[in-house]
Amino acid sequence: MKNELLKHINLPEDLRQLAPEALPQLAQELRHFIINIVATKEGHLGASLGVVELTIALHYVFNTPEDQLIWDVGHQAYGHKILTGRKDIFDTNRQLGGISGFPKRSESAYDTFGVGHSSTSISAALGMAIASQLKGEDKHHIAVIGDASIASGMAFEGLNHAGVTDANLLVILNDNAIGIDPSVGALKQYLTNVKKGTEKQDNIFEALNFNYSGPIDGHDLPLLLSELKRLKTVKGPKFLHIITTKGKGLKQAELDQVKYHAPGKFDAKTGELPIKSELKQPPKFQDVFGETIVELALKNDKIVGITPAMPTGSSLKYMMETIPDRAFDVGIAEQHAVTLAAGMATQGLIPFCNIYSTFLQRAYDQIIHDVALQNLPVIFCLDRAGLVGEDGATHHGVFDLAYLNCIPNLVIFSPRDAIALRNIMYTVQLGIDFPIAIRYPRGRGHLLDWKKPFKAIEIGKGLCLKTGTQIAILSIGTIAKTITDAINALDEKDAISHYDMQFVKPLDERLLHAVFKQHKAIITIEDGTIVGGFGSTILAFANKNNYSQKITILGIEDQFIEHGTTDQLMQLQKLDVTSIRKEIKDLILSINNG
Amino acid sequence: MKNELLKHINLPEDLRQLAPEALPQLAQELRHFIINIVATKEGHLGASLGVVELTIALHYVFNTPEDQLIWDVGHQAYGHKILTGRKDIFDTNRQLGGISGFPKRSESAYDTFGVGHSSTSISAALGMAIASQLKGEDKHHIAVIGDASIASGMAFEGLNHAGVTDANLLVILNDNAIGIDPSVGALKQYLTNVKKGTEKQDNIFEALNFNYSGPIDGHDLPLLLSELKRLKTVKGPKFLHIITTKGKGLKQAELDQVKYHAPGKFDAKTGELPIKSELKQPPKFQDVFGETIVELALKNDKIVGITPAMPTGSSLKYMMETIPDRAFDVGIAEQHAVTLAAGMATQGLIPFCNIYSTFLQRAYDQIIHDVALQNLPVIFCLDRAGLVGEDGATHHGVFDLAYLNCIPNLVIFSPRDAIALRNIMYTVQLGIDFPIAIRYPRGRGHLLDWKKPFKAIEIGKGLCLKTGTQIAILSIGTIAKTITDAINALDEKDAISHYDMQFVKPLDERLLHAVFKQHKAIITIEDGTIVGGFGSTILAFANKNNYSQKITILGIEDQFIEHGTTDQLMQLQKLDVTSIRKEIKDLILSINNG
Repeated sequence: MKNELLKHINLPEDLRQLAPEALPQLAQELRHFIINIVATKEGHLGASLGVVELTIALHYVFNTPEDQLIWDVGHQAYGHKILTGRKDIFDTNRQLGGISGFPKRSESAYDTFGVGHSSTSISAALGMAIASQLKGEDKHHIAVIGDASIASGMAFEGLNHAGVTDANLLVILNDNAIGIDPSVGALKQYLTNVKKGTEKQDNIFEALNFNYSGPIDGHDLPLLLSELKRLKTVKGPKFLHIITTKGKGLKQAELDQVKYHAPGKFDAKTGELPIKSELKQPPKFQDVFGETIVELALKNDKIVGITPAMPTGSSLKYMMETIPDRAFDVGIAEQHAVTLAAGMATQGLIPFCNIYSTFLQRAYDQIIHDVALQNLPVIFCLDRAGLVGEDGATHHGVFDLAYLNCIPNLVIFSPRDAIALRNIMYTVQLGIDFPIAIRYPRGRGHLLDWKKPFKAIEIGKGLCLKTGTQIAILSIGTIAKTITDAINALDEKDAISHYDMQFVKPLDERLLHAVFKQHKAIITIEDGTIVGGFGSTILAFANKNNYSQKITILGIEDQFIEHGTTDQLMQLQKLDVTSIRKEIKDLILSINNG
Repeated sequence: MKNELLKHINLPEDLRQLAPEALPQLAQELRHFIINIVATKEGHLGASLGVVELTIALHYVFNTPEDQLIWDVGHQAYGHKILTGRKDIFDTNRQLGGISGFPKRSESAYDTFGVGHSSTSISAALGMAIASQLKGEDKHHIAVIGDASIASGMAFEGLNHAGVTDANLLVILNDNAIGIDPSVGALKQYLTNVKKGTEKQDNIFEALNFNYSGPIDGHDLPLLLSELKRLKTVKGPKFLHIITTKGKGLKQAELDQVKYHAPGKFDAKTGELPIKSELKQPPKFQDVFGETIVELALKNDKIVGITPAMPTGSSLKYMMETIPDRAFDVGIAEQHAVTLAAGMATQGLIPFCNIYSTFLQRAYDQIIHDVALQNLPVIFCLDRAGLVGEDGATHHGVFDLAYLNCIPNLVIFSPRDAIALRNIMYTVQLGIDFPIAIRYPRGRGHLLDWKKPFKAIEIGKGLCLKTGTQIAILSIGTIAKTITDAINALDEKDAISHYDMQFVKPLDERLLHAVFKQHKAIITIEDGTIVGGFGSTILAFANKNNYSQKITILGIEDQFIEHGTTDQLMQLQKLDVTSIRKEIKDLILSINNG
């Protein structure tokens, strides 16, 4: 009976041939298919398991892709991908050249809108629904959004607009009380009360002019089918509230929903995670942040920590456990997080506002208008800066240096290793009179022994890591290690100097003058976009000061980067040891022949 | 009796000496004081008139500045400024070197948080309230926010967080059913129903855990006083809904709230606006946009227009009047506006999404993640780009070229005059397969005769405006006119070439190669930040192609620019005719001596 039904289903039109009674079995098969592949190939697990029944019901009742389905965030769309033509290549999920871990327009007509960041689905679906109206088409437009995502401001904006249209829009609230971490906020409490029946159902969503129904059990296929069929006949904006269990069908995933959000490899049969090797590894940068903020905050009671819905991913959870009254998970609310931090800073607190580089794009105006313009000492910790690997184009943190660099008053620092991250955190909590962005990558550094005594870092000061005779390499951030390895692999290593500039802003101009005076050529290297980034700042310095030697700018080219392992992607961007070594070698040759 | 009470009041402590019965008279005096000064000095009028009683009541009941008061957006804070030490300099409002038109921390301890962009007050006040709690202080924290601003996503995020705290926060909803233009959206309808009594008061805000009271008449001073006094004793997050009339006390301002939002000069006695001169003037750029989109949309039914709450300011109102089913005011919801446009673009519509440059910062992630990453043909029209004058630091549109330039796939165009704006709008609606940002300034151009037959513009193509022998000036946007005037004022005008590059991205590399080959020196000029802007792109081109001549980059320095007339500010930034002429002259000298 293994995949007896699923094996015949390539597209939703095949699914629609089944009798409704067969669908629960299909749900079982689909669930196991997902578990089996994610167990070995890794990826997001819990969210997709939670919507297996909903996925089947939607494609069964609605005429996809004519009817348009948008999965908010999109890491719950594995079942959707498998049922819409990608079953046979699902084992390439998130791999270089394989399918994306998120819905993607270029991949399938069933992926009506590319997603990755949260809370975009209602706006996009409403745009489509209004377009259908204008074109005189009779289509359905469905946004599936979780309870963590609907609490984000952008989702509210979409609801607020939709409620005054007669667009044919169905918003399905997939309420499982969890995003990546448990949901927070007043709306979440309200939804819980609706579920418990302690809050009337004539509710917030009805107040916003939606035709509300629910809450219903999102794992009950017959109920889902009948409710979706009924809603197909209801015109205008409508709202279905369903209750699901994240990780449904895999016991461990139901019990530890945070860990099984994206568990890595696990045993498909038992659900057990492999026992972690006892081998000591260098820490993840997020843990350097998480452990250091606790260490500092225990001594400095002005320190507060803020995360928009990433307590686990940022490791702020350590502080939330140790010093709960000064560590805040504000939910998926980057805009609020930044201005909350600004408000706190006006009162003399020292807010560490930890936001993934890619998500800080959501709070760009707040950085400029609420923090930098007032020159408030907010400390932005940008985790997941640079290329993040398998999450791909929606999640790479490659624009931050460029979009932050043009903001007056803001100091920008990037540590080359765990010790520098630790020390800059120590430095800023001693007292600063400016805002600062500290950017560091996903994953682990290379230092095992990183918990050294704190040492203050001089603001705006670069460091010489190695002196040489001909070429100066200027770098920012953890790519310093790759560069060191590349230099060490050279025969001509004596020709190369290497400087960790540490600060993109302010630049260490004294150091730069010395560097430009002593070298025939300059290479800048960064793991962000070269347009407006670190290298462009060095170029502006050189131009202003009439230095005329050759400057080679290495970094991410002006294009969106797809998914793959970080190593693969760095190689493709020519930012790996071999490529950098070759770049240096070529430059040495050209100088000596030139 | 003129200013009999007001003349004795410099600070709220003076106000608190008055008997409560005297306050209505003070309100009258304050209202007339505002009217008299704004009538001659210009500024925002209606919003401040609407909150005269609230302003007095708040400073009377609460112990400002210990208790912390935040005015959302801030253009309603004139009464607040007058009562908090700035009465005697209020006539310098919005002038160069004078006080700011918005609350500003550096100006007064009573201005607890700098504002200008909407919907920040709840987050900031909550940050302060949490800080007070942590410090063991017993303070009150009050955010005053309008009904247009509270419908923005960021405000919802603040409410959603506040509702799960026990912070001592009072949110006052100043409900006058209008922002700059009339409020829109489902929440606005809901609030209207609450006012009418057709909606129960156990409401959205109570669902979010706020202690709700109201709605009450916001012009009834005794009622305001008693309600605020009562609320002082209520712990935790609380919400007061007051109803006011924008422009209250000036008949014309009450009747035409849009026009009297910021009416310019008017007759303080009669309230009448001066009769507009019949002299034909060049049109405002916003009107070039507004008239052209109507002209195009009447012929092309795929065109839709979107504005987040700026139908008047953007002149999209012309399309809203002519073709209402294809022109959308989505409220203060820039994030939603952009992703709505993206959703529409997936369905083959041609969305013109018009957002002021400074407010597009609010939708930065949506441009990257929802539009550019999917390469959707959304047309962003960025009004108020460059320096905007009297609104000052919060409103200048000087970062756009820098923050947009690093986004892959995005085309960036800036018209040098009304004809170019008109023609690029014509060009893009013929069909494009990329997103484009079109940036143009506040105010009028220089062409009277601009409604020429449409002519398509070649994407990525720059123009030679003048040829010369030694120096090439490369410019972007309407500053071309200033440069032409500067060149014409030179004796050595034959030495100067001038190119309007038109596109910051993609660069016209063919033209640039020719320019660099034919000139001894290059000057780039833009009215945006020089960090990561147009000049920096030219620098990167030159570096990549090994051109080594001197490049002078003129633009806005890396600092926030205060308020003043645009002419004054351009002069201070050395972007006026005289300064540019001098810059060219100096360069000619240095070349010929060098």
